Amino acid sequence: MSVEASLNFAAVGLDFGGTSIKIGVVRDGAIVRRAPSLPTLAYPTPAELLAAMVASIGALRAEEPGVAAVGVGLPGIVDSRNGVVHHLTNVPGWDHVPLSGQLAAATGLTAVIENDANAMTFAEWKFGGCCRDLHNVICVTLGTGVGGGLILNGQLYRGRQMGAGEIGHMSIDYRGVPGPYGNFGGLEEYVGNQQIAGRAAVAYAAAGITRAPAQCTPEALASAATGGDAVASAIWEETGEMIGAVLADAVWLLNPDAIIIGGGVANAGELILGPVRRTIRARTSSVFYEQLAILPASLGDDAGLIGAGALALDAAYR
Amino acid sequence: MSVEASLNFAAVGLDFGGTSIKIGVVRDGAIVRRAPSLPTLAYPTPAELLAAMVASIGALRAEEPGVAAVGVGLPGIVDSRNGVVHHLTNVPGWDHVPLSGQLAAATGLTAVIENDANAMTFAEWKFGGCCRDLHNVICVTLGTGVGGGLILNGQLYRGRQMGAGEIGHMSIDYRGVPGPYGNFGGLEEYVGNQQIAGRAAVAYAAAGITRAPAQCTPEALASAATGGDAVASAIWEETGEMIGAVLADAVWLLNPDAIIIGGGVANAGELILGPVRRTIRARTSSVFYEQLAILPASLGDDAGLIGAGALALDAAYR
Repeated sequence: MSVEASLNFAAVGLDFGGTSIKIGVVRDGAIVRRAPSLPTLAYPTPAELLAAMVASIGALRAEEPGVAAVGVGLPGIVDSRNGVVHHLTNVPGWDHVPLSGQLAAATGLTAVIENDANAMTFAEWKFGGCCRDLHNVICVTLGTGVGGGLILNGQLYRGRQMGAGEIGHMSIDYRGVPGPYGNFGGLEEYVGNQQIAGRAAVAYAAAGITRAPAQCTPEALASAATGGDAVASAIWEETGEMIGAVLADAVWLLNPDAIIIGGGVANAGELILGPVRRTIRARTSSVFYEQLAILPASLGDDAGLIGAGALALDAAYR
Repeated sequence: MSVEASLNFAAVGLDFGGTSIKIGVVRDGAIVRRAPSLPTLAYPTPAELLAAMVASIGALRAEEPGVAAVGVGLPGIVDSRNGVVHHLTNVPGWDHVPLSGQLAAATGLTAVIENDANAMTFAEWKFGGCCRDLHNVICVTLGTGVGGGLILNGQLYRGRQMGAGEIGHMSIDYRGVPGPYGNFGGLEEYVGNQQIAGRAAVAYAAAGITRAPAQCTPEALASAATGGDAVASAIWEETGEMIGAVLADAVWLLNPDAIIIGGGVANAGELILGPVRRTIRARTSSVFYEQLAILPASLGDDAGLIGAGALALDAAYR
């Protein structure tokens, strides 16, 4: 391959969040240049935000040669096949916006859009710790909500309405806590950020220990558990067991090669990975478990941006 | 295509059961000729059973022109990629048998082997009621055990060790009834043939009604419910709710196009399909449910044989 051609293997990636949009140039699975983030809610209409995105993409291209594509990861209902954003989580006004067509027209680049959990999954699979040779990978993100994405038979699996990977709504108890979709016992109702804090507050109170809400966040609980706090340790054990129970269901259904666990709550590290691994091992066939890798995500907050860029490059050179 | 070439599109399919092996010629998704079944346990060694299978395949080929391939569906751990039967459920002596190579050598035909639930899934998808244009299909069989198979992104999905689709071990309650793999609340522990009968016996006793075990089988319960028996109706309602709860989890994870429900217990028809549909509708996003087909299997006991033959043809003409 000539130097000129190899220079072309770059894309602008955008990671669309509820408060800010991160923008950077992705090459070989890494962010090689960043633009200032855009404030998501500062633009009255999608068209004005689009103009700001296009300006930022233009500025990056002036600085970085060989950008051939642009990819955007977005939270919500995203039709990546047709390039339409049907609904954006926490961002009003984005209903049925044909974003990839608009971006392609405004930039002259190949443009793709993707659900942000799928973009993260793609990046962790392709450029993360050890998964690049694996064909079947479940990626789960633990944060305010619990989400995920799937690589199956060596490709991103999206499902009929591109809604696959909603691990947070899978149930640990069909008569458990009611959830937002009429479901009961959905994982997110127990191990979302705030639900962990809520369980911790209850457990401390039951133990006769006074704790302020700020001492019940996942971050505080991780510090406390590391420092020997038995209540906090028990909360992590229980949290890992619940997550492991749902992932064991997914293992029975999909017999995957690997499970990757990311998101803010996963920053607790072995406090949560330990019980997750033990629960999956205890609840699935040893045949499945022996060849199953259970790993922390390795790209951190950059995974969505890297994945969006990498998916765009894939589309450009398919 | 010439008449000669089209005549070639036939395969011998074998459906390997614990008591008998069904054999027939499959053409265009239908069984066009059958050979007498072989008694699975009458042969002391795999080699002797193989010889009987080869003789039967030879007799069919003498009667039916244009057989180009042979496919075998088997219950147990089947490595379809390498053609090795690692373990056969309820059939001793079948450990690590390279069956497809042996069949190919003995017959001169393209030979494939496949897990029987996968073979059934492939047949129901390709030749069943309405699924042939769909890309993502979950197939579940309800019988003594609860099993299943997956079509994802338009192809049979097998997973790392070809063990995917074990819907019966997915849990409805992570602190529920213990199962054989250390799991708790596995669906099969509630809705397997015998477990349905057990729940019915308990329910009749609780209602002060005397019922013999023969009156508690799924067949008897279906008749009773149709005849207005409130206890039997409640058992079906509960059974459908439990199955629906696990399938709702699978819908959240995979956002499929269709779910196909087969096996002996599914012969109860709407008695079980009704509550399954209602439960999935109640527990998933309406976005997912609106485009989800939930259908009875349509090929009955022939699905495994047809699927095995069709998979063999696929391999021969790939």
